[in-house]
Amino acid sequence: VIALCAREGLAVVPQGGNTGLVGGSVPTGARREIVLALGRMNRIRSLDLLNDTATVEAGCVLAAVQAAATDAGRLFPLSLAAEGSCQIGGNLSTNAGGVNVRYGTAREQVLGMEVVLPDGRVWNGLRGLRKDNTGYDLKQLFLGAEGTLGVITAAVLRLYPKPTASATAWIALASPAQAVELLATLRSRVGDRISAFELVSRTCLEAVLAHLPDARDPLGAPHPWTVLAEFGDCGTAEDLHGRIAEALDGHEAVLAQSGEQARSLWRLRESIPEAQFSNVKHDISVPVSKIAEFIDLTDRALKCAFTSTQIFCFGHVGDGNLHYNIGPAALVAQRDAVNRVVYDAVERLGGSISAEHGLGQLKREAIRNQKSPLELELMRVLKTALDPKGLMNPGKVL
Amino acid sequence: VIALCAREGLAVVPQGGNTGLVGGSVPTGARREIVLALGRMNRIRSLDLLNDTATVEAGCVLAAVQAAATDAGRLFPLSLAAEGSCQIGGNLSTNAGGVNVRYGTAREQVLGMEVVLPDGRVWNGLRGLRKDNTGYDLKQLFLGAEGTLGVITAAVLRLYPKPTASATAWIALASPAQAVELLATLRSRVGDRISAFELVSRTCLEAVLAHLPDARDPLGAPHPWTVLAEFGDCGTAEDLHGRIAEALDGHEAVLAQSGEQARSLWRLRESIPEAQFSNVKHDISVPVSKIAEFIDLTDRALKCAFTSTQIFCFGHVGDGNLHYNIGPAALVAQRDAVNRVVYDAVERLGGSISAEHGLGQLKREAIRNQKSPLELELMRVLKTALDPKGLMNPGKVL
Repeated sequence: VIALCAREGLAVVPQGGNTGLVGGSVPTGARREIVLALGRMNRIRSLDLLNDTATVEAGCVLAAVQAAATDAGRLFPLSLAAEGSCQIGGNLSTNAGGVNVRYGTAREQVLGMEVVLPDGRVWNGLRGLRKDNTGYDLKQLFLGAEGTLGVITAAVLRLYPKPTASATAWIALASPAQAVELLATLRSRVGDRISAFELVSRTCLEAVLAHLPDARDPLGAPHPWTVLAEFGDCGTAEDLHGRIAEALDGHEAVLAQSGEQARSLWRLRESIPEAQFSNVKHDISVPVSKIAEFIDLTDRALKCAFTSTQIFCFGHVGDGNLHYNIGPAALVAQRDAVNRVVYDAVERLGGSISAEHGLGQLKREAIRNQKSPLELELMRVLKTALDPKGLMNPGKVL
Repeated sequence: VIALCAREGLAVVPQGGNTGLVGGSVPTGARREIVLALGRMNRIRSLDLLNDTATVEAGCVLAAVQAAATDAGRLFPLSLAAEGSCQIGGNLSTNAGGVNVRYGTAREQVLGMEVVLPDGRVWNGLRGLRKDNTGYDLKQLFLGAEGTLGVITAAVLRLYPKPTASATAWIALASPAQAVELLATLRSRVGDRISAFELVSRTCLEAVLAHLPDARDPLGAPHPWTVLAEFGDCGTAEDLHGRIAEALDGHEAVLAQSGEQARSLWRLRESIPEAQFSNVKHDISVPVSKIAEFIDLTDRALKCAFTSTQIFCFGHVGDGNLHYNIGPAALVAQRDAVNRVVYDAVERLGGSISAEHGLGQLKREAIRNQKSPLELELMRVLKTALDPKGLMNPGKVL
């Protein structure tokens, strides 16, 4: 298909589960183009348990990859809200992130890759090697490129030992600074057993409690901030629970006593997006050490700039990644002005205006004010070198 | 300096600690070129403990980076034989590996980077972000490029919690297949507590025992294969030792009872390179699941091809990375023929002829028979796009 499009000068919009939030898999309508849906390339080609790898096709739904790993006694750690319908090809093309602070983003899960190049030739780089220093690591080019350099059709993914014990805690905090300090303390006490560490502002929790009639605040009294933390380990649940309880000593916290309790805590976190929908959304990151300063600075700047603001802040503390959303709904009409305040703070603190959602169409203009002209030039040099006719997903990223 | 060289059409050979094994930092003499030594750019610019990052200059010796992390209560995990003199810029440019199976190669330690481009302009990508999906991840280009696309001058590196307990075991095994199985078992039992898992053939151990007059075999009786395993955890040494002893139940093994005993076990492993020097060396990788087959296949093929062979095999099982060296010394004169046998087996099993040492000058020809023409073409496309005048480290990699 790609070879035919190249011959005809037809542009190609690769599309996975179409769950992206920045319009990366949506045609712009600016020129003649086809949508290339990868959903039928959905085979798990092989599992190599002694190598801890799975070779999967781009159209595999993320949850299916997770399930195949689980069935084989392994863990595929990438996890995000859309996992029931997003596809692994899209996850890799957008370098998807999610909650699993311990294992890194999609990029870090990939050992090998198969890619159809803009001229239709197939590069077979499906190697299952953890070390391979034989020249430029070509697969890195296509990870996070949002389909603008070629179409990922398959990949060799890392699998991990499946934790045998887990613990889930809901922890009261006075401020984001306390959350960052607690994460540092926990990392020194329980190391890599922390698999998620999710910040939730009081506004977010109240929105969820209003949205879900049967939900209740896990802690008796209201707290300005809370963290949902997840821990995993090989060993017994008793050992892990004991360690976590000890590590959290001195904090007001609830440690889930059953799988059902853990799921109800996670349901609170996972319902945040649908509970506060009509506002100006952001997916930003800053160094972890700057999280508190970012929230403080931006909250104040927004309060100065607009007469009424309501800030819903939640996110992945371990990755410095905040979903920082600003209401009320009336502010949506002033989206550009709101963005300007937030992006200024991001820039001041050395952050990113798209931590995990990509640029797509939505942030293609904004990024020109954030990145240096040299960095933009280097990106264009790569685009021109690999896709000289500009046929791959035009109008996205660059 | 680079801008001046670009103006004069003078080639540049970046050089760090000059400890590479493939001639990547050595001028070829084929044309007028300068050696650019980075050793004086050796400041640790900053440590950000709440972000778990260090910003360091290229000329920092690896051991100095490790020490700075340790002094701050953190771990910088990259560790390899030359750590006392190799420099971090060289480690990143060659995507160095080493023994630390748990944390990955140099590439995986980098969050941000500063690079002088072939025309002398400086790209400042020194971001300390764990998530940043705003277009192509430019730093990936320079990692492992062996200085052929630009000169890395500084980087933001990840730091990790420092394990508070460690355990070191020397384990008897009948075969490489048993080593691979044991690693899989241990991963399911103790997860990421495994920080090194080093295979040692009897020939290697005997060479070390002959080379070090005061060394002795840690196990009473001779075994065809042994593994040196290192474990780390946050917690007490007693807890960790108890778990490891339990996990190794049924295996003939020595668990070090003191730091001194652990060091003497590591000394056996670290003395292997100097104990078997005059032979034909290889640094190969295969999928972990193919290690046993590789050793079996290659041993047999070498015995067929040459009247007398002595095989010294050691390496990093968790990475599928073997140093597979073939004596006696007389075979060095037949290096090309020996390489051919080994590289054929590597290719058959989907492996790499340079797992962690790079291509440099030494493997620049050999790789042309291993990689597809398309992959070589893509590498050349990148080289031409970023260094159109071919001034950066000519005669290396491509």
